Amino acid sequence: MQTIGFIGLGAMGTPMAWNLEEAGHDLLVYNRSDGPTEPFADAGIDVADSPRAVGQQADVVVIMVTDDEALAAVLDGEDGLLIGLDSETTVIQMSTVTPEATEAAAQTVQAQNARFVDAPVSGTVGPAEEGTLTVLAGGDDDVIDDVEAILAAMGEPIVRCGDVGDGARMKLFVNLLLGDMMSAYAEALTFGAAQGLDLEAMQQVVEAGAVDSPLFRIKGDLIAERDFQPRFPVDLQFKDLRYANEVANDVGVQLPQTAAARESFSAASAMGHGNEDMTAVLKYLESIADVTVER
Amino acid sequence: MQTIGFIGLGAMGTPMAWNLEEAGHDLLVYNRSDGPTEPFADAGIDVADSPRAVGQQADVVVIMVTDDEALAAVLDGEDGLLIGLDSETTVIQMSTVTPEATEAAAQTVQAQNARFVDAPVSGTVGPAEEGTLTVLAGGDDDVIDDVEAILAAMGEPIVRCGDVGDGARMKLFVNLLLGDMMSAYAEALTFGAAQGLDLEAMQQVVEAGAVDSPLFRIKGDLIAERDFQPRFPVDLQFKDLRYANEVANDVGVQLPQTAAARESFSAASAMGHGNEDMTAVLKYLESIADVTVER
Amino acid sequence: MQTIGFIGLGAMGTPMAWNLEEAGHDLLVYNRSDGPTEPFADAGIDVADSPRAVGQQADVVVIMVTDDEALAAVLDGEDGLLIGLDSETTVIQMSTVTPEATEAAAQTVQAQNARFVDAPVSGTVGPAEEGTLTVLAGGDDDVIDDVEAILAAMGEPIVRCGDVGDGARMKLFVNLLLGDMMSAYAEALTFGAAQGLDLEAMQQVVEAGAVDSPLFRIKGDLIAERDFQPRFPVDLQFKDLRYANEVANDVGVQLPQTAAARESFSAASAMGHGNEDMTAVLKYLESIADVTVER
Amino acid sequence: MQTIGFIGLGAMGTPMAWNLEEAGHDLLVYNRSDGPTEPFADAGIDVADSPRAVGQQADVVVIMVTDDEALAAVLDGEDGLLIGLDSETTVIQMSTVTPEATEAAAQTVQAQNARFVDAPVSGTVGPAEEGTLTVLAGGDDDVIDDVEAILAAMGEPIVRCGDVGDGARMKLFVNLLLGDMMSAYAEALTFGAAQGLDLEAMQQVVEAGAVDSPLFRIKGDLIAERDFQPRFPVDLQFKDLRYANEVANDVGVQLPQTAAARESFSAASAMGHGNEDMTAVLKYLESIADVTVER
Repeated sequence: MQTIGFIGLGAMGTPMAWNLEEAGHDLLVYNRSDGPTEPFADAGIDVADSPRAVGQQADVVVIMVTDDEALAAVLDGEDGLLIGLDSETTVIQMSTVTPEATEAAAQTVQAQNARFVDAPVSGTVGPAEEGTLTVLAGGDDDVIDDVEAILAAMGEPIVRCGDVGDGARMKLFVNLLLGDMMSAYAEALTFGAAQGLDLEAMQQVVEAGAVDSPLFRIKGDLIAERDFQPRFPVDLQFKDLRYANEVANDVGVQLPQTAAARESFSAASAMGHGNEDMTAVLKYLESIADVTVER
Repeated sequence: MQTIGFIGLGAMGTPMAWNLEEAGHDLLVYNRSDGPTEPFADAGIDVADSPRAVGQQADVVVIMVTDDEALAAVLDGEDGLLIGLDSETTVIQMSTVTPEATEAAAQTVQAQNARFVDAPVSGTVGPAEEGTLTVLAGGDDDVIDDVEAILAAMGEPIVRCGDVGDGARMKLFVNLLLGDMMSAYAEALTFGAAQGLDLEAMQQVVEAGAVDSPLFRIKGDLIAERDFQPRFPVDLQFKDLRYANEVANDVGVQLPQTAAARESFSAASAMGHGNEDMTAVLKYLESIADVTVER
Repeated sequence: MQTIGFIGLGAMGTPMAWNLEEAGHDLLVYNRSDGPTEPFADAGIDVADSPRAVGQQADVVVIMVTDDEALAAVLDGEDGLLIGLDSETTVIQMSTVTPEATEAAAQTVQAQNARFVDAPVSGTVGPAEEGTLTVLAGGDDDVIDDVEAILAAMGEPIVRCGDVGDGARMKLFVNLLLGDMMSAYAEALTFGAAQGLDLEAMQQVVEAGAVDSPLFRIKGDLIAERDFQPRFPVDLQFKDLRYANEVANDVGVQLPQTAAARESFSAASAMGHGNEDMTAVLKYLESIADVTVER
Repeated sequence: MQTIGFIGLGAMGTPMAWNLEEAGHDLLVYNRSDGPTEPFADAGIDVADSPRAVGQQADVVVIMVTDDEALAAVLDGEDGLLIGLDSETTVIQMSTVTPEATEAAAQTVQAQNARFVDAPVSGTVGPAEEGTLTVLAGGDDDVIDDVEAILAAMGEPIVRCGDVGDGARMKLFVNLLLGDMMSAYAEALTFGAAQGLDLEAMQQVVEAGAVDSPLFRIKGDLIAERDFQPRFPVDLQFKDLRYANEVANDVGVQLPQTAAARESFSAASAMGHGNEDMTAVLKYLESIADVTVER
């Protein structure tokens, strides 16, 4: 039976690792700080003391860390994962990182004769717990085939996006759309509220029409409760829109609406709402219009 | 039994009138030109020769015409509906017109002691045929209660939006969101295609996530087939975004993203795509990026 | 010697009329309210009691009123200018009105066999007092030739813009540029100040380079003094940008930057700065960034 | 007498170096490739074979290279400038580089006990030849005082911008304004031309008003001649706007108009005009509107 090493037990990584455990896989976990490994140790799951150790002991290594820098920290150095790899290992990179970081990671992994899958996920903590994350898989089809059961324990569907790097590109594509939709919804709600329309009626109309979306249902209810606890915070969405605009500028695609959304998230962040949920982009529009969207 | 007069047998009005007929209502129809009334006459349904005649004979009058000017043309003049009204009549205004035109119409109708319901609809020809249009009802609750069965023959749900004028405002609210979403989707697809992402994979990822929407499903498939036959043409969506921006400027709401979307629809229209489906906003972005979104 | 009738003694009209007087013209004035005519009466200048009287007595009639509605009020009705006109009269329309209102006024004037010149001005009260307004003249060259000396008493240069209506179009062109530049300057100053750059140093750099402009010199000094007394208020500039965007949408010209500027002026107005000088668009940007541009 | 070492003999550096020679300074030049040094050698001016040699022989070193990377290449390595520096040397960094690169360069220079002045310039080849570049000086006042005569040989005025890094920040400030103005002018001209206004008349009106600017005079004439030979190409202006937006996002300043201008330059670049003069942003707007701005 294969051993799966899981690196990165954050808000997303923890439930993803548990889902692997529940699917019956032989698990080995690692986290930079100790706290998050304790529940796993308590359950009798092995805890490695370095990424290097994970690489040496696991057949498949899943990486789920914060960003490009954290990914490099996992891979490189004396205790890094790269040293522990050999031709028997497959690395599944699931963190949200740039296509450039993904391609660089793949190169160094493949230089150790190990195999690499680019597999970031779309979805937040809820889907991570339920195992319904959308997996954005990039890489050789046969390598993905070999780890499909592992991916399936964490998410569904598994969408084949193309080569290594295309998973990361797909993640940016969907988060661009997410940011634009969130800020468009905030504009529409502020527009309606300023004219006296009732939030519940606006929600009903949206839900009944072609513009209906799980996003609007979830976020609309949170707005109704004025609940801005961060699920996906303004500053992370802002970062994605900045990055998307940069990539678009590089490849010659015009994104006028996304550029405007980026400025709205910028304003929300500058006004102190960076750590609130992405819905707080609404607060910027409300403050200019001097209106509150509420039931 | 009440007689329902139906004025305006266009692409939307015709199936709406048939749905009334099928629901068992006693129908009387009128159209400015003769062609559209023929199938009704063939089916033994009474055809009036003026809006005035409709007002005189019907208990409830449904108006479904093109715009503010067409509404005024129905109401005013020697053969106009107003002359035919009395305190026994209820007028249901279902055309997509401005809140100002709605309020003005209500005033003149009520000055004849007749009753007025503001009830534009959200949805296109498909829902009109299926009787599943979202009805955006504004006016006194008891007046709406009295005609609810009639509205229910044409659409579902019937959302209570507030006073007369608020139905029209709600329609603008939802079309603003529609325009922003369409153009955001076009930006996202162009962005993905320029980086080599496959349209089908992008569609799968959208459908699996929080950003899923009937709009993206329908329009994504039409784009995949490069089918730009007009369901809701660029120029009508463009008109709505222009009007929304004007209203927002009047009421002090900032709409940066909507302003950008408006410019994109403006460009698509200027490039000759005004009469194509609203999805053709994509063609403007494609032409700048020199890329085609296709399977 | 020709008698010049001057209709509209506002902040701009009053100094323009005095400049005509000083240039030795025989003057007759009219204003809707009495106050502004008193200094003229005190100086022995004839005061008419209606636009109609002006039309009957003057050879050349200058109109300098607020907007489209005020222009219609001068022309129409029993006491209106139109009734007093004959083939010996030339009407010079100098108010800032739309091309449509200009062309409609020209038609009704010419229907009385009188002649019409479209001649709005660019510039504020200072240039009006100094007689250095830029005159944007539209109409037949020979008609303009005949009144050139009169125009020259009020402004310099007199730019031939084309037909009747083109003066109004040129005014909109230059005010679009004005709004964009003002808001761009506000963005640049906020950007610099947030990074700790000194206002005086920024002004020096602008003045020394290709981007130098009388606008930036004048407005930069006012900003340095935090003087937002209205020369040309936010709401008037906002109105012009709205109108420019509408016209651009009509003629198929994309104006992405102007659309963004319009939203900035909208925000400044919504935040309560509508009656302050156009420089107050800065206050909106400052409030988001929580920074003040000052020496 | 002090020896001045000049590193970087490009289109800007060459005339700047000649101006130092003409002002009577003892000159030593270096360029990565040999061609540009030949005219200096022919005139009997010393040519160094490495930045290191320049550092060893010169009292004051002027650096005028392309970008952050070129600056690092001059400073670092075995033949790098840093090795040649001692406490008797002052380095004047005049290239257009980022504040971060400027501050990093200052640190490494000061670590050799040498002195550092941040002094990028505003202006193109014409002012470089005439010695009228605006010098944006950042650093200790007494260090700048000591090299003021040297700076004065190349430019005028010398604006004190603050600390090291503030020169680079000021350069970005003025180029942001430049990009916004260029694209606003392009929008205005396209707007006017689409309505039939004559370019020459538009130029006259701009020149006569508060919006007049050397930029519009120079670029207006080039547009009239349809001369898009690069003085400052689209892609460099585009790069500056991208960078300005990034910095603004970092410091919490909203730049809606600049974000829109960036998208216009992006479109012009994507359409193949990246190497043409920045005026070619006009071509993008013209192509959408299907109109040409010409006399």
